[in-house]
Amino acid sequence: MGEFGLINLIRSISDKFRNPEQASWQQLLIGIGDDVAAWQGDNHVQLATTDTLVQDVHFDLDIITWEELGWKALAVNLSDIAAMGGVPRYALISLACPGEIEAENISKLCHSMAALAADFGVAIVGGNLAAAFNLVITITVLGCSKNKSMLKRSAAMPGDQIAVTGHLGASAAGLEMLKGKISLDAETTNILRKAHLQPMPKVKEGQILIQQGVNSAVDISDGLIADLDHICEASKVNARVAITQLPIHPLVKANFPDYLELALCGGEDYELLFTAHEAIIDQARGVLNCPVTVIGDVVRESLPNRVTLVDSKRNVVHYGKGGWEHFRECNGAKIQ
Amino acid sequence: MGEFGLINLIRSISDKFRNPEQASWQQLLIGIGDDVAAWQGDNHVQLATTDTLVQDVHFDLDIITWEELGWKALAVNLSDIAAMGGVPRYALISLACPGEIEAENISKLCHSMAALAADFGVAIVGGNLAAAFNLVITITVLGCSKNKSMLKRSAAMPGDQIAVTGHLGASAAGLEMLKGKISLDAETTNILRKAHLQPMPKVKEGQILIQQGVNSAVDISDGLIADLDHICEASKVNARVAITQLPIHPLVKANFPDYLELALCGGEDYELLFTAHEAIIDQARGVLNCPVTVIGDVVRESLPNRVTLVDSKRNVVHYGKGGWEHFRECNGAKIQ
Repeated sequence: MGEFGLINLIRSISDKFRNPEQASWQQLLIGIGDDVAAWQGDNHVQLATTDTLVQDVHFDLDIITWEELGWKALAVNLSDIAAMGGVPRYALISLACPGEIEAENISKLCHSMAALAADFGVAIVGGNLAAAFNLVITITVLGCSKNKSMLKRSAAMPGDQIAVTGHLGASAAGLEMLKGKISLDAETTNILRKAHLQPMPKVKEGQILIQQGVNSAVDISDGLIADLDHICEASKVNARVAITQLPIHPLVKANFPDYLELALCGGEDYELLFTAHEAIIDQARGVLNCPVTVIGDVVRESLPNRVTLVDSKRNVVHYGKGGWEHFRECNGAKIQ
Repeated sequence: MGEFGLINLIRSISDKFRNPEQASWQQLLIGIGDDVAAWQGDNHVQLATTDTLVQDVHFDLDIITWEELGWKALAVNLSDIAAMGGVPRYALISLACPGEIEAENISKLCHSMAALAADFGVAIVGGNLAAAFNLVITITVLGCSKNKSMLKRSAAMPGDQIAVTGHLGASAAGLEMLKGKISLDAETTNILRKAHLQPMPKVKEGQILIQQGVNSAVDISDGLIADLDHICEASKVNARVAITQLPIHPLVKANFPDYLELALCGGEDYELLFTAHEAIIDQARGVLNCPVTVIGDVVRESLPNRVTLVDSKRNVVHYGKGGWEHFRECNGAKIQ
C-alpha cells in the first residue's frame, strides 16, 4: 500500500480514537499530516517532530563521518520546525546501535549534534540507548511558535505564487558524487558533500516567512515535486511549476546532466517551499538573507495531476506517473 | 564502556554546550539522568520521554502479537511519565520497518496503541515511517505536570523508606515462560503473558504519590536492583533492601525456583519504586488502589555497594559484583 497509504491508515486509526472530551484533543491544533504536530500550550503553541535515520537506508558509514551523521540527524528535525516557522527548544536522542560501535564514534556523533543544537538554542535533554543490529537514530525536537499562525501544509490558496529559498539539487547531486558516480574538483566536492551531509536548517528563515504573512510551507525533504504534492493534497489545490524558473544549484547544472531530475526529485535540500500572494513573497525576499525564487503558482483543483510541470511556453512537461517515485528510492516519510 | 558509561558521556557532551543565556537552558528543570526531561512551560511543567523497542532485542515476533507490541511500545513510555507523577498528553510514533511487513499488522499495532493512548487521554499526533532491515519502534510521549514538585530520581533522603507498588517478577517470569522454559496452566499463562507483554503503566498511581508528598521515584524497567541503583546514584545515598519483604508475585513464587532473581533483576514490571518518610508511605497506601510494600530503607552513602540486600536477620546477602548484569542481558537504557 506504500508509505503514504500507511500514513493515511495510521491517521485514520488515530482519528478513530479522537475524544473531544479529552484535553489533549481539545488543545490539538495540528495532528498527523504536517511537518510537525502542534497544540495550544498555556500561552504559546507547542510543536513536536520526530525523524529517523537508518544505517544503509538513509546513510552509509563508508561515506558519512560520525560528525556529519550527528549533524544531519538533528538538522533534518530542526528543518521540520523551520517549515512551521517555529522556535526549536529541546531535543531527545534515541540511538539503537550495535555493541561494536566505539564510544569514540558515539562521542563524535553527539558532540557534533550538541554543537548544532547550541547554534539554534536547543538543549539536548534526554533520549534512549538501545542495542540493535544496525544503527538507527531517532531524534525528537520540541519547540514552540511565538505566533498564533503557523506555516501549515494545508493553507495554500489558488492565486498564491509558489516560491523556494536557496538552490535545488545540490544534496542529491552530492549523494551521486559520494556514491562515486562522478569525480569533481576539491571545492565543488566540498560544497556538494556539505549540501548532502550537513544541510543547514532554515529556522530563522521560517520565522521570517511567518512574520511576513506567509502561512503555507514545507521543507524540501522528499523532493520538490513530492513535497509540493503534500501541500496540494493538504490544501486541496493544484500547482503549476515552471521548470525554467527552478533555482537549480549552478554546480549541479554545470556538472550533472540529470540536473533537472535532481532538482525536482532529489530531495533533502531542506530549503523551504512556500506559497503566498506575490506581494508577500516580494516583501519576504527583501528581509530574507537568502535567494527566494518564484517557481510557479497555485490553482484550484482542476488539473489532471496535483503538480503540473510546464516549460517556458507553458506547455505541459510529462514526467510520467510516479516519475519521482521511480527515480528516488522511497526511504521513509513523516507520519506528521 | 557499557551503556551507562555511554549515557554519562552523552550527558557530559550535552552539558558542555549548556548556555545559561539561552531560554531552553534557563527553563530546563530536569535534563539527562532521570525518567523524563522536564522544563518550565508558561504555566505548567512540560515533560518529554522517549523509548525504543528493537526487534529480536526487545521483542520476538514469534512470541508477541502485533496488538501486544503496540500496547507495550506505548506503555513503557507512559510508565516513564508515571514515574514522574506526570500527565501524558501527546505521542509521536516512529516505525522503522522492513517493506515486507503487512499493512494489516501495522494496523493492528497502531490500533492497539491508539486504544491504550485513548485510555490515558493521550493523542497520537505524529511520527515517522522509515524503511529498515528489522522493526525498530521509537515512541516519544509528551506530557505535563500539574504540580511544581516532581518524582525525581535525585530526591531520596537518608531516613526514607523504600516502597514499591504491586508485585515483582511477573514480567521476567512471563518472558521465561514465553521462551518455552516452563509450561503452566492456562490462567497462569495468561496472567504472566500479560505481565510481560501488556504491562499497565501506573500513571494515576504516580500522580497520587506526588499528591501525597512523595518526591523520589522511578519505574521498574531495568529491574529492582538496577533501578534502585539509579535512585541511589542520583540522590547520592545508599539503599538497604530486605529480601524477605519483597512483594514477589505469588504465581512467580509458586512456579519459578529462581523467583528471587526474577523479582530483583528481571525488570519490566513497570511498577513504581519510590522513597519517602514512613508516614507519607502509610498515607499513600490508604489512597492508592494497589498494594504498596515497604522493602527497605535509604541510608547515607556509607555502605560498600549502593544497593545492599539483607536477610531477615539483617545479614548481608551477596549477589556478586554485577550479578544482575550477568543475569539479564543489557538491552538498552534511558539517556534521560
